[in-house]
Amino acid sequence: MTPAATRWLESFSAALARRDLDAAAALFEPDGYWRDLVAFTWNIETAEGRAAIRARLERTLAAASPTTWSMDGGISGPSPAGDGFFFAFTTRTGRGIGHLRFRGDDDLIRGDDGLSRRPRESGGRAWTLLTALRELKGFEEPSGSRRAHGVEPSWSDRRKQESAELGVTRQPYVLIVGGGQGGIALAARLKRLNVPALVIEKHARAGDSWRKRYQSLCLHDPVWYDHMPYLPFPDHWPVFSPKDKIADWLEMYVRVMELDYWSSTECVNAHYENEKWAVDVLRDGEPMTLRPQHLVLATGMSGFAFCPPVKGGRERFLRAGGSLLHSSEFGSGSSYRGKKCVVVGSSTSAHDICADLVESGAAEVTMIQRAPTIVVRSATLMELAWGRLYSEAALAAGITTDIADLTLASVPFRELPALQRPIYAEIARRDADLYEGLTRAGFLHDMGEDGSGLHSIYLRRGAGYYIDVGASQMIIDGRIKLKHGSVAELGERSVVLTDGTTLPADLVVFATGYGNMSEWAAKLISPEVAARVGPVWGLGSGTKNDPGPWEGELRNMWKPTAQPGLWFHGGNLMQSRHYSLYLALQLKARHAQRRCWNHFNVKTLFTILRHSS
Amino acid sequence: MTPAATRWLESFSAALARRDLDAAAALFEPDGYWRDLVAFTWNIETAEGRAAIRARLERTLAAASPTTWSMDGGISGPSPAGDGFFFAFTTRTGRGIGHLRFRGDDDLIRGDDGLSRRPRESGGRAWTLLTALRELKGFEEPSGSRRAHGVEPSWSDRRKQESAELGVTRQPYVLIVGGGQGGIALAARLKRLNVPALVIEKHARAGDSWRKRYQSLCLHDPVWYDHMPYLPFPDHWPVFSPKDKIADWLEMYVRVMELDYWSSTECVNAHYENEKWAVDVLRDGEPMTLRPQHLVLATGMSGFAFCPPVKGGRERFLRAGGSLLHSSEFGSGSSYRGKKCVVVGSSTSAHDICADLVESGAAEVTMIQRAPTIVVRSATLMELAWGRLYSEAALAAGITTDIADLTLASVPFRELPALQRPIYAEIARRDADLYEGLTRAGFLHDMGEDGSGLHSIYLRRGAGYYIDVGASQMIIDGRIKLKHGSVAELGERSVVLTDGTTLPADLVVFATGYGNMSEWAAKLISPEVAARVGPVWGLGSGTKNDPGPWEGELRNMWKPTAQPGLWFHGGNLMQSRHYSLYLALQLKARHAQRRCWNHFNVKTLFTILRHSS
Repeated sequence: MTPAATRWLESFSAALARRDLDAAAALFEPDGYWRDLVAFTWNIETAEGRAAIRARLERTLAAASPTTWSMDGGISGPSPAGDGFFFAFTTRTGRGIGHLRFRGDDDLIRGDDGLSRRPRESGGRAWTLLTALRELKGFEEPSGSRRAHGVEPSWSDRRKQESAELGVTRQPYVLIVGGGQGGIALAARLKRLNVPALVIEKHARAGDSWRKRYQSLCLHDPVWYDHMPYLPFPDHWPVFSPKDKIADWLEMYVRVMELDYWSSTECVNAHYENEKWAVDVLRDGEPMTLRPQHLVLATGMSGFAFCPPVKGGRERFLRAGGSLLHSSEFGSGSSYRGKKCVVVGSSTSAHDICADLVESGAAEVTMIQRAPTIVVRSATLMELAWGRLYSEAALAAGITTDIADLTLASVPFRELPALQRPIYAEIARRDADLYEGLTRAGFLHDMGEDGSGLHSIYLRRGAGYYIDVGASQMIIDGRIKLKHGSVAELGERSVVLTDGTTLPADLVVFATGYGNMSEWAAKLISPEVAARVGPVWGLGSGTKNDPGPWEGELRNMWKPTAQPGLWFHGGNLMQSRHYSLYLALQLKARHAQRRCWNHFNVKTLFTILRHSS
Repeated sequence: MTPAATRWLESFSAALARRDLDAAAALFEPDGYWRDLVAFTWNIETAEGRAAIRARLERTLAAASPTTWSMDGGISGPSPAGDGFFFAFTTRTGRGIGHLRFRGDDDLIRGDDGLSRRPRESGGRAWTLLTALRELKGFEEPSGSRRAHGVEPSWSDRRKQESAELGVTRQPYVLIVGGGQGGIALAARLKRLNVPALVIEKHARAGDSWRKRYQSLCLHDPVWYDHMPYLPFPDHWPVFSPKDKIADWLEMYVRVMELDYWSSTECVNAHYENEKWAVDVLRDGEPMTLRPQHLVLATGMSGFAFCPPVKGGRERFLRAGGSLLHSSEFGSGSSYRGKKCVVVGSSTSAHDICADLVESGAAEVTMIQRAPTIVVRSATLMELAWGRLYSEAALAAGITTDIADLTLASVPFRELPALQRPIYAEIARRDADLYEGLTRAGFLHDMGEDGSGLHSIYLRRGAGYYIDVGASQMIIDGRIKLKHGSVAELGERSVVLTDGTTLPADLVVFATGYGNMSEWAAKLISPEVAARVGPVWGLGSGTKNDPGPWEGELRNMWKPTAQPGLWFHGGNLMQSRHYSLYLALQLKARHAQRRCWNHFNVKTLFTILRHSS
């Protein structure tokens, strides 16, 4: 297989060298893809089809060249995931890793998980190409043999002074609002890249964004997917991390990675003027103004609690001693022993909270389902979906975290549903008992509007699924009761549903999700800026809660937005890990441009940046 | 090269299978070695010469068999260190890693560092054999695919409860006195092995044993040598860790590894009766009695400050406002700006403290040298000694931390001086300028009594050297003045040396080292027990401060002592990492024997243990 990939790279490289864009584009299938993570576009973009690929080359090649392409390097050669080829490349400003994938002229040959394909050499044209920037020339991270070699007898004093000064007498270049895994991962990368960055977090301790969630929460993603950058979990770490364990990890991570992190600090508002932000914050209640060049909102997919409107009765319900909570405020089921509980929603937190209430001895637990939900058994998901890239077996096959991340990144979002559908068809077949049971219990379930399952819906709207670790059986067994519709009104210790049903209730939990991340921009900056930036997250798939147009990438995530100096970062642990690199490199490039006029090829960078922000 | 090793293993295996001890012993050179780390002897022992090897086989083979020997397994085949062969083996109770090394009939063929040899196939007889137990059958650590797979919604409650109970309502099986890197590494291993262990540490925070040392302290060992078990430093960690950075790392390690660790807890005394200890401790000043089965003293090589006797004048000196400190009490040079300072001693801490005082602007700094000291430049040591096994280049060559540790462990202590001497001869040649300068300045230096350098003297007496990171140049330049002898008497703001010299002094620091670890046994248990156990550390080389007889191993370290249930653990970070495994396995075996009568092959173990404790 390697000869075909080598031949392709040689042809591509030669076409680029002689600036023959037609020849270069013709090396792709007519509907081939080129996804670029910052290396050529200084943006995160997928070019779909030859015309788009050619147009991108026209736009970026002069600035990026001279480029070299090679099958030697850190990660290169046939992918251990059995799916494509890795290679190394360099541009004028940086070094990257690429991934190249062929498809035969025939239909897809799907592996049992729908993702793996047997590459064909016949066509010789690329189906997908990924180019991912990994480091900037001259600004490599100080890892391995580049680490500090001398002794530093006053390390402790220096750290104390640095962290006392940053944000006070010396302004951070980057201010990161939100100190969950996203903000922390980005801050760690910026620290290694020597970009002054400050994280502000409203809670008292790093990790509190997990610690303060409901007590029974465990990560639903497996450990291999969840590593933070640079410092992987030790190899006994449980597959599904309890939330307090992750919280403790994040707290120690902030410390040992020497991050500048202000806890108990809230962002009040932010204003952009003269290419700089003025950000008003309350630090331990004291007002301060920070003046960073760049503002990253890493406030989380779960930052903005959303409750659907309820006609009335709120006051009456509370006066009568009822408890009314958003899922983000829910602690432990043990407080509701003997109580009648209504949980609105049917995604992950609704399931987890219902299960906790049942196990804690609530008198009655009713889930109010508003719409069909994707349910998948955790073990099945692990086996059929996660396992190929993120598992002990994958590791044993040489699929490191980095290779797994790059492989996942190499699949164009447009192709994802078709690749995922067979997986979910197989899941439906294998766990037919579960789905029959749920149907019998009246639970509405599907595999997403187009059958493409959980990974798709997460990218489209970040919600709408439950990875089953036990609550589904409680629904089947009737220990969690089920109703449909929404809450119309609250009574005195009761809930009235839209269909007229009245349920007695001591506790009502709205596990109804979170608003769009752009709401943070509206709240902290202005509704005008939020409107200009547009929705954050989602692909524009045109499916429910993911309005078009199609963007081919997650909207506004990790890349320049319509508001200069404003960035969004977040997602699950994998995304926080992997995409923080590309965001960090974009910020570093801007920082280097500002500081190191001589060292960095500024003219090139300017040309590039004009295209991308 | 592999065929020779394979043939050897096959022959050895066959000889053992037919219980032909003579044939097995004849596979070694007449003066060959077999070092065993717990796998056969349930002890740490080096058998020197065929007769000793035969005797050991006679003693251990029946209990250990059936054994299998194989060139396949986790670490196996020719060593990437270019020095011998790794193989896997199993005994009746466990799985191990072995290392086998040949020597030709000719003289040693030394590599440039004196350690690497080109193996010869001609002889076909083993020069050195190492057998190291790695895990007990049925009690494997829950790593990788054995990690916890289920969700644990009440993790936080369980941890809180466990840690509240241990030592209070539930007694630990192992009590570890001393919570530095040694105690922490051992506790981490016991935690993974599911042996209830409690660490008590007199300081307020984990890491304080480093944090409270003098401010300018940095590790003198390089980062590749210093990893803790399970959780290596991230790859940007500086080569020489500042002490507060290590302290923070240890503190977070205790937390994320879920160790049971009581800080601010002092051991008052310990008493062994009916196969159990009664250990009186003060926890936050409150007296308590702990009743563990096993007591591990991990109080550190640097636990017991030693000051040589001074004839008199102490009171007078202090009354006159002078400061008198042991190096363990010294903080920062900044407190002694403009002061006249005398530092007694010429090992690492004496050098570091002198340098700090000079840089902080002390009026005068005088080092009082009592005896010749080994001085080696840090960079040279890294290049000629550490680098082969512990460096970025070693890692790139596939020499993982584990392989490096095993390679080091495979060299018999008796052979070490001969292997080290050429390294130090080369160092002396390369850094002739340094040594000439020191000689000119009157500094007494050598490469140890027998020229075998720093590694030898560390094993023999844990002190007597300085890895130069700058203080030597200060001595050469006269910024650190030099006197010889000892302190006879203290005057009013002065020091009188044994040769009659009087030095003005506002500060006197005794950087005169630490007592033997057995002093802790004397203090905490009884002088009788300490006497029965004998010296702790040292090889019995007969050199200064390392009285014979020769033991072939570090005395009383990580292995059964003459006092049942009493163990010693400690050393530098490498030793704390590597040898904690063998101590943990010994403790686990005893714990398993007690608890799992059916599961574990108790009879075998009993037979074995009778020989070893």
